[in-house]
Amino acid sequence: MKPLKVGIIGLGTVGLSLYKILKKRKDLNIEIVSLCDKNNKVKIHKQDRYKFETDYKKTLNSDAEIIIELIGGLNPAETIIKKALKNGKNIITANKELLAKKGKNLFNLADKKNKSIKYEASVGGAIPIISNLKRLKTINTIKSIKGILNGTTNYILSQMHTNDISFSLALQKAQKNGFAEENPALDISGKDAIYKTILLTFTAFNKWINFSNVKSNGIKKISIEDIQKAKSSGKKIKLICTVKKLDHNPTIKVAAEEIDASSNFYNIENEFNAVEINGEFFDSLLFKGKGAGGFPTASSVLSNILEFRP
Amino acid sequence: MKPLKVGIIGLGTVGLSLYKILKKRKDLNIEIVSLCDKNNKVKIHKQDRYKFETDYKKTLNSDAEIIIELIGGLNPAETIIKKALKNGKNIITANKELLAKKGKNLFNLADKKNKSIKYEASVGGAIPIISNLKRLKTINTIKSIKGILNGTTNYILSQMHTNDISFSLALQKAQKNGFAEENPALDISGKDAIYKTILLTFTAFNKWINFSNVKSNGIKKISIEDIQKAKSSGKKIKLICTVKKLDHNPTIKVAAEEIDASSNFYNIENEFNAVEINGEFFDSLLFKGKGAGGFPTASSVLSNILEFRP
Repeated sequence: MKPLKVGIIGLGTVGLSLYKILKKRKDLNIEIVSLCDKNNKVKIHKQDRYKFETDYKKTLNSDAEIIIELIGGLNPAETIIKKALKNGKNIITANKELLAKKGKNLFNLADKKNKSIKYEASVGGAIPIISNLKRLKTINTIKSIKGILNGTTNYILSQMHTNDISFSLALQKAQKNGFAEENPALDISGKDAIYKTILLTFTAFNKWINFSNVKSNGIKKISIEDIQKAKSSGKKIKLICTVKKLDHNPTIKVAAEEIDASSNFYNIENEFNAVEINGEFFDSLLFKGKGAGGFPTASSVLSNILEFRP
Repeated sequence: MKPLKVGIIGLGTVGLSLYKILKKRKDLNIEIVSLCDKNNKVKIHKQDRYKFETDYKKTLNSDAEIIIELIGGLNPAETIIKKALKNGKNIITANKELLAKKGKNLFNLADKKNKSIKYEASVGGAIPIISNLKRLKTINTIKSIKGILNGTTNYILSQMHTNDISFSLALQKAQKNGFAEENPALDISGKDAIYKTILLTFTAFNKWINFSNVKSNGIKKISIEDIQKAKSSGKKIKLICTVKKLDHNPTIKVAAEEIDASSNFYNIENEFNAVEINGEFFDSLLFKGKGAGGFPTASSVLSNILEFRP
């Protein structure tokens, strides 16, 4: 069996975890032909003798068949993916922002070049939601999708509810425990959840929702009083992403909602994510798992790599 | 694209549902070349002009590439699958009892003939647990699997807990609503759950547990007093299937257990099933869905059919 040749660009938490898994699992026969990070102090084992680059162009010009983009953000990720596709390489990415904003063009380019863009790790961390949704939609008309898709906001809301602490204390705790970034704006504003909801919509309905048309308050306006009011009537507040297809148009909504104990999402706490799919024949399916983290997310990237094996 | 040619043997709830889905979804390009049920009064549409047989041998001798066995039980299902494999056909089955008791030989025969036996519908109805477990295990060491795998017993336990009714009243209600058979022995004894646990063990660890070595009381000994005692301390009683791998040997257990609200299974109620998988990189994943029913189970059979498309 020929090895699958991959190039990894971006050695942050997910990239380094992927590197560690691949080092451990030589039996999977995946060959890292090039590793790239702009920071040349990334801790990889020198004795592995991977070609370590700080300039992504070298990785794009390597003989990798698959480019794994794990740097995030719009630039230079967009350039990297476009160039890689033009160089005849397949793409795996965890970049929800880029796909949500520029996915239409990127997938069109991939189609034109007869290449694939795979993105399991961009939604729901370890949860195999993209592959399952693709599999389910070939058989079923998907009716709706609901999810808790952002671990940072879910952690904050869980902590406020369980420990009766303020938003800012909960945020501090999230930051201290590695569940929120120093600048948590992207998560708290609901933007990160919108990106993921746009990707689920594309996966299920093959339609791109325009990011700039989707508004959300995220959890910015949720106070401890709101939480306590919900709690007093046996409810919880969760940031819920919803996609519904009415006639031909999917509509999406990302909003903090009061839910009761009958909801599949009532017990999804802290850093966990969950997605509920409703469809024609299977009725309702729920998938729950770790929504982020190096190894959980890297395992989703790895599942995408293996899909390229003939 | 060449149509996939299938022969369906057994037109009970699942078989008829599959037939209805395939009639509706001509676009999937799956051709039913032979339909068989020993009962010649099965209601299929005459105008479809499928070759309807009451003798399975005719279906086995048809030009179907895939035989879908949906009659259940040991005989003649075992004979049918063996003959079909010897005739060079692939197999899809929902027959958990047969696979749990005779799977080792049947899978060996399939290997020898270079054919596949697929069995998504045999565990967890609509939940795509077999395909996900296969996908996950290529990457991760699976550490343990836990599940509620029998809808009948879960329905009975849920009803006893929620409505404070006796076992026999809950059973009657389950029978009235189609969640229990007239003779519920197979479910209540835990046997059905053992079959499914054996299949999950094989899927995850490639080891066959000997059915006759597994003992369970199922839910036969659970009284309303047990339920009320659990309830008074905030707990529920559920029939939990557990597979653990210690060193090289997976061990399984199927037992009524007291669980608390922190368990993933606390809110799996009535006819729903759920499976939790713990693994090396992804940590914990939960899959929840309808554990039985014609259309949910048929959609799992259909997902298996599509796997045979090149």
